[in-house]
Amino acid sequence: MFDYKKHGQINPPARLLMGPGPINADPRVLRAMSAQLVGQYDPAMTDYMNETMSLYRDIFQTQNQWTLLIDGTSRAAIEACLVSAINPGDKVLIPVFGRFGHLLTEIAERAGADVHTIEAPWGQVFPASVIKEAIKKVKPTMLAIVQGDTSTTMLQPLEELGEFCRKNGVLLYCDATASIVGNPMLVDEWQLDAVSCGLQKCLGGPSGSGPITLSDNFVEHIRKRHHVEAGIRADHHQEGEGTRIRSNYFDLPMILDYWSEERLNHHTEATTMLYGARECARIVLQEGLDNCIARHQLHGHAMAKGLSAMNLELFGDKSHKMTNVVGVNIPAGIDGEELRKVLLLDFGIEIGTSFGPLAGKIWRVGTMGYNARKDTVLTTLAALETLLRIGGHSFTASAGIMAALEVYAESNSFNNV
Amino acid sequence: MFDYKKHGQINPPARLLMGPGPINADPRVLRAMSAQLVGQYDPAMTDYMNETMSLYRDIFQTQNQWTLLIDGTSRAAIEACLVSAINPGDKVLIPVFGRFGHLLTEIAERAGADVHTIEAPWGQVFPASVIKEAIKKVKPTMLAIVQGDTSTTMLQPLEELGEFCRKNGVLLYCDATASIVGNPMLVDEWQLDAVSCGLQKCLGGPSGSGPITLSDNFVEHIRKRHHVEAGIRADHHQEGEGTRIRSNYFDLPMILDYWSEERLNHHTEATTMLYGARECARIVLQEGLDNCIARHQLHGHAMAKGLSAMNLELFGDKSHKMTNVVGVNIPAGIDGEELRKVLLLDFGIEIGTSFGPLAGKIWRVGTMGYNARKDTVLTTLAALETLLRIGGHSFTASAGIMAALEVYAESNSFNNV
Repeated sequence: MFDYKKHGQINPPARLLMGPGPINADPRVLRAMSAQLVGQYDPAMTDYMNETMSLYRDIFQTQNQWTLLIDGTSRAAIEACLVSAINPGDKVLIPVFGRFGHLLTEIAERAGADVHTIEAPWGQVFPASVIKEAIKKVKPTMLAIVQGDTSTTMLQPLEELGEFCRKNGVLLYCDATASIVGNPMLVDEWQLDAVSCGLQKCLGGPSGSGPITLSDNFVEHIRKRHHVEAGIRADHHQEGEGTRIRSNYFDLPMILDYWSEERLNHHTEATTMLYGARECARIVLQEGLDNCIARHQLHGHAMAKGLSAMNLELFGDKSHKMTNVVGVNIPAGIDGEELRKVLLLDFGIEIGTSFGPLAGKIWRVGTMGYNARKDTVLTTLAALETLLRIGGHSFTASAGIMAALEVYAESNSFNNV
Repeated sequence: MFDYKKHGQINPPARLLMGPGPINADPRVLRAMSAQLVGQYDPAMTDYMNETMSLYRDIFQTQNQWTLLIDGTSRAAIEACLVSAINPGDKVLIPVFGRFGHLLTEIAERAGADVHTIEAPWGQVFPASVIKEAIKKVKPTMLAIVQGDTSTTMLQPLEELGEFCRKNGVLLYCDATASIVGNPMLVDEWQLDAVSCGLQKCLGGPSGSGPITLSDNFVEHIRKRHHVEAGIRADHHQEGEGTRIRSNYFDLPMILDYWSEERLNHHTEATTMLYGARECARIVLQEGLDNCIARHQLHGHAMAKGLSAMNLELFGDKSHKMTNVVGVNIPAGIDGEELRKVLLLDFGIEIGTSFGPLAGKIWRVGTMGYNARKDTVLTTLAALETLLRIGGHSFTASAGIMAALEVYAESNSFNNV
């Protein structure tokens, strides 16, 4: 007998997600995702696919034709870019300044790459000169780099890398999952060849769809490995001369065929996630991409000022912080995990810890997407103040809230966002 | 400026999806998916993950502890099972009786397998004896087989294979995407080692989540290749002795860690898809799995009888057909694609064609999940009758509807489903 009590309808508790992501989805995204399905070759569906491509071109600030979704989480989108481009034995250079640099290394190694890493201490980023030197030394086929590494909250500047890579015949891949639409990402201006992200940070959607954009240069490279699956065409010809891509699911040349006017079947597009991804982009572009980034700057700044004013030390290099997430050292005498637990279960507010060397040493507080708002900043600071004081951490009463309010008072245009 | 006219809110046309899938999602699934998110380590979320595991054990008729979701389409779930189990050079035997057998071959080859195939003509299945003979000859590490190949509508019997595979030390993987909950799938009784599926057929959900179940035997095999990602643990120890799995995203030992009580971070679970997958299972189990299969039998039978009565020749071996989808030869003189187009755009009803050798030669009509109902069968037959008559195909007026109604009249318990 079905146990109705044990398996009731979905009814999650109300939570305010102020961690490093996922965050609360914008209710408009959830509404869009409740729309009924259409068939995968329905003109309505292919129109939605084309529109999604167009909307994400604006998100990525690119003219790249091949701007589309990978059906999986942001990690799936990373793997699709790397495994499609890396021929076994290719040299790949990866600057690691946090957990997600390690992830790129992992994925590239499994794709058969000869990976060379350079490492920065967690909390720092790389000067462009260091990366350029490494490129000269290693002479990689590809540079793979994270823009914003949520594990450390740091934002790697990319401005100078693209031109240098093009000149040296190096493909430049970037993971922008944590940074996109909360920080500038100018794919064409910066000459990036492949960029991937996910919905669950500043885009304000649920995890499960990975937008990517690919330069013509990158597409030409991967198309050398183009094969067509047996069983879907009467003529089983294989177009590519290059080595076969190690994954079918992440075979970008085949995925491009599916998103092209040819619509050659690959996977069955995850329609509901596409509805969600489309709505995420629509919301950002309606607000205006620059306004959206400015909003993340404002609320992230208010949060950081508020936390500082409660005698919490900000983690890492302040001049290279993402706008949308801030790390603070957990003060001596406070049990970081216990505080997070009470904050979640009594106040309904979630903040994060970190990974690896920073696990249990820093908290990470996000102001992302739908949750980059004045009310969320103030309620989070108020709840934190209460728990820090109970825990014996000393600071001037209301200092956090007052510091945040000061930021808002100085800001005209966003005061009522 | 944002173009509101071009990029309006999601508003898909009303369609009745009577093809081979995806089909209309059950509205209860879409409602569940509109619930707000919680954090990935929130007790509410981990409870939902555990419940989802439990619900899918009942769907797969198994006691397997490791029953969980892959964040991607059904194709992602196939690849996760194959790439995690196949060591480069392993012999894999794949009986191919349609397009999805070719897909298994593709995926296994890319995982580095030494693939051996046997082929049956499209429209047939394999006698168990033929597969057993091939196992004896090839001595594979793994047998990978499709249960229901939607490209041909055929259902491969699996009853005799599991015991034989266990005796011969062969892992048995099965793709049940098209067949699950519309046809019997007894994972434990049939001794299957790994089974994967998707939501977009008889489970009545959208594409984008791939439920899998793994036997202890299979898990022991893949755990030999267990590694822990750098950057998420302070101690970077590697547990496995075996060759590293070629994909990070599809590394099942790591995904198992994420779904275990240890909750070691891998991807960020696609929460909305998990809500949907959970609701799909809940709906089937509330109806009762046997009732759900019987409902697919009834409506699939009514559809097939109706189509036959309109002088359409059923495709393939009638004694080995899936309950939930039927193929018919497109009659001479009818432009199959033109009819499908008018059916979709004027009547709002979608049916399918097929792939490869059957493209444009057969239509495939599904009665799946939420759409396995009397009203959908009757309206589809009525619309088809109109278009076939306009196209010059001759048969007794109303013969299709009458034949379907006869099936319903003979059935007591389901007459009003």
